[in-house]
Amino acid sequence: MDLRPLRVNGKRLRNSLEELARIGATPAGGVRRLALSDEDRQARDLFVSWLEELDLEISIDELGNIFGKRAGTNNGLPPVVSGSHIDSQPTGGRFDGALGVMAPLEVLRTLHENNVETERPIVIVDWTNEEGSRFAPAMVGSGVWVGALERDWVYDRTDRNGNRFEDELVRIGYRGTTPAKRWPVHCYYEYHIEQGPVLEEERKVIGAPKGILGLHWFDVFVTGEANQVGPTPMEGRRDALCAAAEMILQVNQLPERMGGNMVATVGEVRNAPNSRNIIPDHVHFTVDIRSWDDDHAGRAWKQVREDFEDTAARRGCSIEIEETWRVQHAEFDEDLVQQILQIAPELGYSHLHMVSGAGHDASYMNQVCPTAMIFIPSIGGRSHVEVENSRWEDCEAGTNVLLHAILRSARA
Amino acid sequence: MDLRPLRVNGKRLRNSLEELARIGATPAGGVRRLALSDEDRQARDLFVSWLEELDLEISIDELGNIFGKRAGTNNGLPPVVSGSHIDSQPTGGRFDGALGVMAPLEVLRTLHENNVETERPIVIVDWTNEEGSRFAPAMVGSGVWVGALERDWVYDRTDRNGNRFEDELVRIGYRGTTPAKRWPVHCYYEYHIEQGPVLEEERKVIGAPKGILGLHWFDVFVTGEANQVGPTPMEGRRDALCAAAEMILQVNQLPERMGGNMVATVGEVRNAPNSRNIIPDHVHFTVDIRSWDDDHAGRAWKQVREDFEDTAARRGCSIEIEETWRVQHAEFDEDLVQQILQIAPELGYSHLHMVSGAGHDASYMNQVCPTAMIFIPSIGGRSHVEVENSRWEDCEAGTNVLLHAILRSARA
Repeated sequence: MDLRPLRVNGKRLRNSLEELARIGATPAGGVRRLALSDEDRQARDLFVSWLEELDLEISIDELGNIFGKRAGTNNGLPPVVSGSHIDSQPTGGRFDGALGVMAPLEVLRTLHENNVETERPIVIVDWTNEEGSRFAPAMVGSGVWVGALERDWVYDRTDRNGNRFEDELVRIGYRGTTPAKRWPVHCYYEYHIEQGPVLEEERKVIGAPKGILGLHWFDVFVTGEANQVGPTPMEGRRDALCAAAEMILQVNQLPERMGGNMVATVGEVRNAPNSRNIIPDHVHFTVDIRSWDDDHAGRAWKQVREDFEDTAARRGCSIEIEETWRVQHAEFDEDLVQQILQIAPELGYSHLHMVSGAGHDASYMNQVCPTAMIFIPSIGGRSHVEVENSRWEDCEAGTNVLLHAILRSARA
Repeated sequence: MDLRPLRVNGKRLRNSLEELARIGATPAGGVRRLALSDEDRQARDLFVSWLEELDLEISIDELGNIFGKRAGTNNGLPPVVSGSHIDSQPTGGRFDGALGVMAPLEVLRTLHENNVETERPIVIVDWTNEEGSRFAPAMVGSGVWVGALERDWVYDRTDRNGNRFEDELVRIGYRGTTPAKRWPVHCYYEYHIEQGPVLEEERKVIGAPKGILGLHWFDVFVTGEANQVGPTPMEGRRDALCAAAEMILQVNQLPERMGGNMVATVGEVRNAPNSRNIIPDHVHFTVDIRSWDDDHAGRAWKQVREDFEDTAARRGCSIEIEETWRVQHAEFDEDLVQQILQIAPELGYSHLHMVSGAGHDASYMNQVCPTAMIFIPSIGGRSHVEVENSRWEDCEAGTNVLLHAILRSARA
């Protein structure tokens, strides 16, 4: 059987993405499907029902990661794995994560209806809590699975209302019994929207990132002294918000100061008591620094941390800093990346060798098996917002590349 | 009867303050008694029960302002009025407002038990929503009463949960039937903690402010573009939080730039979507500018507004600005202020002629009748915080000054 002409069903892929996007749909066209929420449960239930239709061997582990295994002709061989996540940002888009789960599902449906056999088994996966918006940090499902994070530490993470991760996992009925512990994997493919402007600017359809930027997360807590604003002279004020404002700008200026090769962002800030006639005394903000060069990022952080301490001291404030998360840069398997760059033109798609600025479960998987990703353009480079969008023909194109990458790795 | 030796009962005053402070008490020793909350209702109920014990003529107007009138020997004369407010900041102190209501109550109790008659009637008042923390703006009870604000506009103010002012007023049972409309007043005294460090630094017990600084409130809304932080290059970002951080520092630098004679503060900031890996696209913050010189404050605002617009444009953001509230500076009645400065040394207290940085219902009352205030020291200058504190002997001292000021104005 010549499998070269085999293609996925773009319409069915779109239908699945649209059906999934109705769960947690927001008025502005995005989705709100926070990890371990009722919406996450509904989406999981739908996903599992689709896996059942394909007679896959379904297993759910103690982190709530959902696996569906399609048997090969030699089930003693480690499988080819592909997946992503179906949780979303608070006001996220319809493609981030969902595409990377619906696409391998479409691949399996295509193999199923065409009776295609592979030597290796193929496993589809939905990783729990990739986003980290409700329970920080992100990517804990894959993180525990590969052994980079401790299960019980993740269980004890709480959301803003004090709900524990484990309790919420039990509540939605997805704390499985299989240990969240890695088993041998032949290779891992993750398909995702780019979430940046590069493919669109370069007018390419398929991107193959050489890897993922290293990521550093910090939480900064500034403490000053609250007072009624009217009667308190400017001199001698210990205004925590002014100190934090200086620090936010220091973070923003950091990449230029370090000569580029990084991005640095403050995304979250909380001010207390947050009353218009009281000088703020407690400000919490986050810092996100990403670079391909882990040492460069480390030096940048050291610089800005010194600035923070100077600023706090000058403004009569104290400062506490926590390192919330660190992921080294991930360099993907060169052979797999090259294979994607080969398949794209064979199928008639333009392609680009690039880098991923966003973190993905592929970062963790890359620590334990050969890993690669497939990107398609994000319209306007927009992501993590409700207007996040990609063209349906691009979604189909990427899924066809995924299909043939899986077929080659699984030895059809 | 020689009234010169007459003094209030300091122990009873303290008991009343402590009993009131139990309503909405916070673990850190402050109070949370937001306007029109259940705690405000409880405090009002207690206050009204105390008024009833003195056989006062009680009336509640349609704004929820509570008045208690003690008859004089000539009730055709306009009364002497004194009061303040019993609502508090979200995590406020035990003295701000409460002292100015409990002290005239103690004055009336002292007159009552000593059978002191006055020619003019004396009215004690608790003004609704002085703080403005739950429903902005502040001082709406006195504002409507003097005719500076519209009743129905105030009724339509909403809190953060969308609850209407009027609905909450009805809910707690304090929308009275008397029109919130001024009647003739002979003079108004408001007794308050200083809420600043001046009396303590100058080691004085009694302060008589010449007036209250003018106050200007603005709400600023900055809009940028949200995006995933990792894949979005620094160039071309439209980061609303960075723009706001620059503006916050511009506000902080404004008094120095304008050569002093003002304070300027950002107390409140809200960031959206407030997720650590998304570039912020919506930031709201408040600006509070106060000066004795209204024109000076107006020029300062014009300056900083131009800076805001430049900053927004440079960072690719748009900006919207609302003027939320403006109160001209209030110059108190010179004769009344001098009377307080006379009474203090007669009673053996040190005294200081000063200015009030904080706004008070006295600002509005000053528009319709001769008005003055009495201040006592705030320990460490702290206010609008749970550790707000004043010495009990100073509370008593100020109440004695209030007693004799009322006696003179009401012609005992």
